[in-house]
Amino acid sequence: MILAEKYRQIRKHSEQICEPLETEDYVVQPIVDVSPPKWHLGHTTWFFETFILQSFLPGYELYNVAYNYVFNSYYETVGSRVIRTDRGNLSRPGVKEIYQYRAYVDAAMLRLLENPLEQKAEELLLLGFNHEQQHQELLLTDIKYILGHNPLFPAYRTEMAEHVHQVEAAQNAEHLHHAEHPEHIEVAQKGGHLPHAAQPQNIEVSSRFREMKTITAGLYEIGYAGTDFCFDNELGRHKVYLPQFSISSNLVSNAEYLEFINSGGYENFVWWHSEGWDWVNNNKILAPMYWHSVDGVWQNYTLEGFQPLDLYAPLTHISYYEAYAYASWAKMRLPTEFEWEVAADSFKWGQRWEWTESAYLPYPGFSKAPGAIGEYNGKFMVNQKVLRGASVATPAEHSRVSYRNFFHPHLRWQFTGIRLAK
Amino acid sequence: MILAEKYRQIRKHSEQICEPLETEDYVVQPIVDVSPPKWHLGHTTWFFETFILQSFLPGYELYNVAYNYVFNSYYETVGSRVIRTDRGNLSRPGVKEIYQYRAYVDAAMLRLLENPLEQKAEELLLLGFNHEQQHQELLLTDIKYILGHNPLFPAYRTEMAEHVHQVEAAQNAEHLHHAEHPEHIEVAQKGGHLPHAAQPQNIEVSSRFREMKTITAGLYEIGYAGTDFCFDNELGRHKVYLPQFSISSNLVSNAEYLEFINSGGYENFVWWHSEGWDWVNNNKILAPMYWHSVDGVWQNYTLEGFQPLDLYAPLTHISYYEAYAYASWAKMRLPTEFEWEVAADSFKWGQRWEWTESAYLPYPGFSKAPGAIGEYNGKFMVNQKVLRGASVATPAEHSRVSYRNFFHPHLRWQFTGIRLAK
Amino acid sequence: MILAEKYRQIRKHSEQICEPLETEDYVVQPIVDVSPPKWHLGHTTWFFETFILQSFLPGYELYNVAYNYVFNSYYETVGSRVIRTDRGNLSRPGVKEIYQYRAYVDAAMLRLLENPLEQKAEELLLLGFNHEQQHQELLLTDIKYILGHNPLFPAYRTEMAEHVHQVEAAQNAEHLHHAEHPEHIEVAQKGGHLPHAAQPQNIEVSSRFREMKTITAGLYEIGYAGTDFCFDNELGRHKVYLPQFSISSNLVSNAEYLEFINSGGYENFVWWHSEGWDWVNNNKILAPMYWHSVDGVWQNYTLEGFQPLDLYAPLTHISYYEAYAYASWAKMRLPTEFEWEVAADSFKWGQRWEWTESAYLPYPGFSKAPGAIGEYNGKFMVNQKVLRGASVATPAEHSRVSYRNFFHPHLRWQFTGIRLAK
Amino acid sequence: MILAEKYRQIRKHSEQICEPLETEDYVVQPIVDVSPPKWHLGHTTWFFETFILQSFLPGYELYNVAYNYVFNSYYETVGSRVIRTDRGNLSRPGVKEIYQYRAYVDAAMLRLLENPLEQKAEELLLLGFNHEQQHQELLLTDIKYILGHNPLFPAYRTEMAEHVHQVEAAQNAEHLHHAEHPEHIEVAQKGGHLPHAAQPQNIEVSSRFREMKTITAGLYEIGYAGTDFCFDNELGRHKVYLPQFSISSNLVSNAEYLEFINSGGYENFVWWHSEGWDWVNNNKILAPMYWHSVDGVWQNYTLEGFQPLDLYAPLTHISYYEAYAYASWAKMRLPTEFEWEVAADSFKWGQRWEWTESAYLPYPGFSKAPGAIGEYNGKFMVNQKVLRGASVATPAEHSRVSYRNFFHPHLRWQFTGIRLAK
Repeated sequence: MILAEKYRQIRKHSEQICEPLETEDYVVQPIVDVSPPKWHLGHTTWFFETFILQSFLPGYELYNVAYNYVFNSYYETVGSRVIRTDRGNLSRPGVKEIYQYRAYVDAAMLRLLENPLEQKAEELLLLGFNHEQQHQELLLTDIKYILGHNPLFPAYRTEMAEHVHQVEAAQNAEHLHHAEHPEHIEVAQKGGHLPHAAQPQNIEVSSRFREMKTITAGLYEIGYAGTDFCFDNELGRHKVYLPQFSISSNLVSNAEYLEFINSGGYENFVWWHSEGWDWVNNNKILAPMYWHSVDGVWQNYTLEGFQPLDLYAPLTHISYYEAYAYASWAKMRLPTEFEWEVAADSFKWGQRWEWTESAYLPYPGFSKAPGAIGEYNGKFMVNQKVLRGASVATPAEHSRVSYRNFFHPHLRWQFTGIRLAK
Repeated sequence: MILAEKYRQIRKHSEQICEPLETEDYVVQPIVDVSPPKWHLGHTTWFFETFILQSFLPGYELYNVAYNYVFNSYYETVGSRVIRTDRGNLSRPGVKEIYQYRAYVDAAMLRLLENPLEQKAEELLLLGFNHEQQHQELLLTDIKYILGHNPLFPAYRTEMAEHVHQVEAAQNAEHLHHAEHPEHIEVAQKGGHLPHAAQPQNIEVSSRFREMKTITAGLYEIGYAGTDFCFDNELGRHKVYLPQFSISSNLVSNAEYLEFINSGGYENFVWWHSEGWDWVNNNKILAPMYWHSVDGVWQNYTLEGFQPLDLYAPLTHISYYEAYAYASWAKMRLPTEFEWEVAADSFKWGQRWEWTESAYLPYPGFSKAPGAIGEYNGKFMVNQKVLRGASVATPAEHSRVSYRNFFHPHLRWQFTGIRLAK
Repeated sequence: MILAEKYRQIRKHSEQICEPLETEDYVVQPIVDVSPPKWHLGHTTWFFETFILQSFLPGYELYNVAYNYVFNSYYETVGSRVIRTDRGNLSRPGVKEIYQYRAYVDAAMLRLLENPLEQKAEELLLLGFNHEQQHQELLLTDIKYILGHNPLFPAYRTEMAEHVHQVEAAQNAEHLHHAEHPEHIEVAQKGGHLPHAAQPQNIEVSSRFREMKTITAGLYEIGYAGTDFCFDNELGRHKVYLPQFSISSNLVSNAEYLEFINSGGYENFVWWHSEGWDWVNNNKILAPMYWHSVDGVWQNYTLEGFQPLDLYAPLTHISYYEAYAYASWAKMRLPTEFEWEVAADSFKWGQRWEWTESAYLPYPGFSKAPGAIGEYNGKFMVNQKVLRGASVATPAEHSRVSYRNFFHPHLRWQFTGIRLAK
Repeated sequence: MILAEKYRQIRKHSEQICEPLETEDYVVQPIVDVSPPKWHLGHTTWFFETFILQSFLPGYELYNVAYNYVFNSYYETVGSRVIRTDRGNLSRPGVKEIYQYRAYVDAAMLRLLENPLEQKAEELLLLGFNHEQQHQELLLTDIKYILGHNPLFPAYRTEMAEHVHQVEAAQNAEHLHHAEHPEHIEVAQKGGHLPHAAQPQNIEVSSRFREMKTITAGLYEIGYAGTDFCFDNELGRHKVYLPQFSISSNLVSNAEYLEFINSGGYENFVWWHSEGWDWVNNNKILAPMYWHSVDGVWQNYTLEGFQPLDLYAPLTHISYYEAYAYASWAKMRLPTEFEWEVAADSFKWGQRWEWTESAYLPYPGFSKAPGAIGEYNGKFMVNQKVLRGASVATPAEHSRVSYRNFFHPHLRWQFTGIRLAK
């Protein structure tokens, strides 16, 4: 019964995220990494149907046999997928139909949850919860991409709606804490708390005194240590030896990153990886995603629409290449994921997915589960970078200090950020 | 007043074509040649607003200044366009908003049409009518592509709706005429009129006696001869000398094309242009667009959904490369556009856009009009092929014997067909 | 015996063209349209071996069976070819080996030519002669591309070598004729004959009085009328009706084209086809191929190396897109291939391949010969433009008024030029 | 003087490697990863000229100022490079010219080496030695690629030439050792030592008993510990904690890999990374590079030309994706680079570059040197995998247990191999 309630809450939250959307917003896929919101709603439903209902609810009948083809994401085990027609080319099933599909599967799931589950089913249920929560974060980042790349730049919301309370709330939160960190933002020391719109962008908002925590060398334990749910890639708690290092208490702010830009950071190869430099030049990258220089003033597309750039806010929507280049320029480096995990208690995290220097690799003893579930994480362990923490778009109960997120180094549509180490 | 009525009718027809659509169907753009239906609705409206209302209705206020950026198709004169974000990436403006935009512009247009127009405005109005009619045909072909490439294969309509009466009606029509052309389809001679579903596809449905009309050599006049509207590319009526030729009274049927397929037509380079052969191999082309071999039986996606292939219907959705290859295989050729125009009185046309051997080139004395209107046709006169006639998707009053349609040789999402010559 | 002598001469000429090359120059293929010189030498040899020796010389043994794979250009009939590995990736067979291959085949050919040939063999022999002559022109244009795109810009020759006497000789020749055409180049009228290096490029060297010949309307015969060799695409002499037109006596000069550039010709879409405009922008085209603006002065890479741009010389190395744009800007047009052929007696031609407005299409009654020889021309009759005349790179006895050359509209590594019509 | 001798030897060895080449073989670049041999010869020379002679030999005059443009590989600091024209498009400078360039630079270097060097110069000299040795390995692998992808499959050598004694010698060597490892190759146990040509490929040549060394858990020191030359990426010796692991004494043999192929290894996604599976399918990979199934028998292109596949030889020319997939299939894994370095004393290494599971990342405290030399390693530390050991193509004195080689996971033209761990 408690599982049923949790199921209901999580499923409802996905739909709440989509409430502000027009029907048309559910459909488009402007780049390959961004999925149409209606696809997320269908795919998370397909997950429960395929892995739980089909196996554990006797007599369950598929809502529509063709949906496996439409809503399978990357599970080779489960059959062929929509590949040649991209997800964004599919107008059907429509939004109403997908909500009906959700209702149909939800009803079946709740019937199933009336009785105790066998253990395998419960494991899959927990995985399904976490899977849906991951797609809730993607829903927000994908919606931001869809609206933020539309020439009309529509806002996702005008004020804080309850059901998306967590989104970018922390960003605001940090702003309120500035008084507590007077050493971090010089402008605050000098000029007090300026209203955002009034902030002159040429004021020097730099970091004279970056607060660094130092961690002594030693053997540390890495990986999930609890008994609740975690992903397979966090398991295999193991020892790692770390030399002494320092790590910043704060994320890099927009003001700090602006210094990098203004000092020619995007024009000097010396700060960049060779591949990063190619990426900058091939894609004519001049600033973080969503920054627009309008008549010489930096504007920022946010979920509330166009805003003057908030210099006090933590930088976001940068690629690993940019994170690395910034760190080089600042004579610092990015932490490894192990350093991050060891030090995480000493700073506030959760606003931005923090790029680490670590490649996404298996922990000692890692092995893929048999079957489709085994495709969840392991097969992506090449050419990606680990991000640690969580972001303002991460659902409330979906964070752990051992959580390992991962993306290719050029991607930046997630709420990514930078924490420096040395 | 008569112009106002015509305006109303044409504008209404575009909306009628879209009536069967779900909101989601208006949004997607599966390939670059196919535009989202909502874009067609907006773009045709933008045409009246930009070229007529802005110049001829004093005090007219733009509905939304950003729409020029969104709905400009290819008019360099008028400013920058949506290029980096494809049309199919734009969820906004939404469908309702675009219908409001149409209503706003229609109201202004009807105010303008209450008084006599100056001549330049009337010319642009007629161009606007024809422009919208061209997009009505594209609406149907694009809708067919969108639904016909969806893995659920939804039908556009289940029965003949009044407002789309012309679409593929002729196809059915031709079928009824089979009794009148017993020499054309052998199976009809032998077996009478089989119900479609019962047609065994291995029956030989071939063309023993193809009826050919012969036109004697001589000097002929080519180009538009009337005084009503025509496009600039039809003007410049001029003499062309034609050697004697013969031209088929009938379009090539599905049955005939099936013979080509069954005899290995797609596997033998000898029938193909070098570029056509590359196209076949690079794209793994095995049959006309919308043909699907399901358990060895040819099915055909039509606007009414999946159907067994109608062997008696005229072939459609083939590229110029396929038209040329078929003609070579049949020891015939495609007519030139001049032969077609001279002979057109001797056969029934209008079911399929008929590929000709002619390249799309200017007629003697052709010159582009100054300004944006001059971009309508002239700048496309390279690397395209002329198609003559009209199709089941062409609006009723939008056909002329001198009409010159044009597409690149690999395209096949239009209702294209083959008429042979010798 | 006379055939044997002709064979010897033609074969020798190909090798003479290559005499100035370093071994390394024979090997590279910088773009797909340019073949390595050693490939040309091998391929023309393979042609005689495959189509003549194998069929008509009893007991002939192939030099190397693998060569069919290496040296087949595009004959599907004859088997698979080097496609996936580009020709420029093949270091073997080496240059010496290919000359040995030539000697081996030549010896066999000369044995064959000691006796009278049957008619089919003689036809193929004549085709082989013309085929090799076509490759002689390509050898020169490909060598120019290879050396002219090397950062060291090596010259092909320092003075006029005897065996390449025809190359760009005409260019010089025209220069000497300036006194005879005082109306053509204004600077000549004013300043007499300036040494090239001293020509100030900002002097106005324009065409005040362009000499135009007028041809009256009427029915004309087009196509090859003689009894000697011609290609299949010239056959089928037929009537064409032409309205009255005028055609320039001169080719467009570098000076004239410079006016187009200086007036912003490459920056104004209005002169261009839509595809041409894309080509200009995607490839950042600013001038004809081989023009380099060095410290504000136009330099031109020629077969003699870098030279100051000769303003009096006929423009060359421009695409059809550029030819069309120039003509539009000059308020003229390009002639059709029919106009060109009819008017050709009234002007000097042969310096540049002259882009025409005509698409490359079959003449009435054209049919492909059976077998590999039939692949020679017909399968390219789509998406290409006809060029008429000949160029300074065309072998001496390889020109006819009915000759139809053809290239894709974006290509410009041939010695192409512009003659205007009206 | 001892440095001068070493300089002479190393420089001579590069030229000896090229001795068997035809001039044409020096020129081509079949894929972007493979450079023309003449480019290697010029580039290594440019390295000494640019970084040593220009700074340390007073009055030194550049051989040719344009060579910086031609022979700079990736040093942004030093100026623009040949990028848009690939290296394989450059016929000039020719081979003779490049040998003259080498002689010119060598003479100047030997003059410089007559006197004691200042320390900075000596450091650069040692780097130049190692740089040239790296290109010696690339010369061999690139030559193998060039000849092995030519349809004539020419051999690089027919017998063991003295100066390339090290190449693939070890391969033979291993074969002789089979008697010493009877447990490794079952066929040897059963059938004795079959001559290669006689080996029936369907005989089961499998690994019943793989000898594994076990290393106990603990803190280990990683990184270069000596005082001689090493690359910057090996520096920063540091502690790493390793859990207990086992590592194979032998490399995976061709016979073992054949089992993987025969069991459908390339057809089952379950063994592959997601990106690896895409790579297999997009590139239609069916076997290691250079394996050809001729009439059902596996042939292998080697530097001695085509050979029947030697089942006893260690597998080579596989990508990381293949290495990973094989290990998964074998219920094992690849070692990390740290495990490899710790265990290296317990097995024979040096025949194959061994793919590790480790991503190429900086060691703790790594920092790039200022200037061009700093571009040597650091800027490549993303998206690549570490390979450990050395190969039969590695120059004799260019191996260290701490050496970190790195390539992208899809590359396989190096002599790569697999050692399993658990």
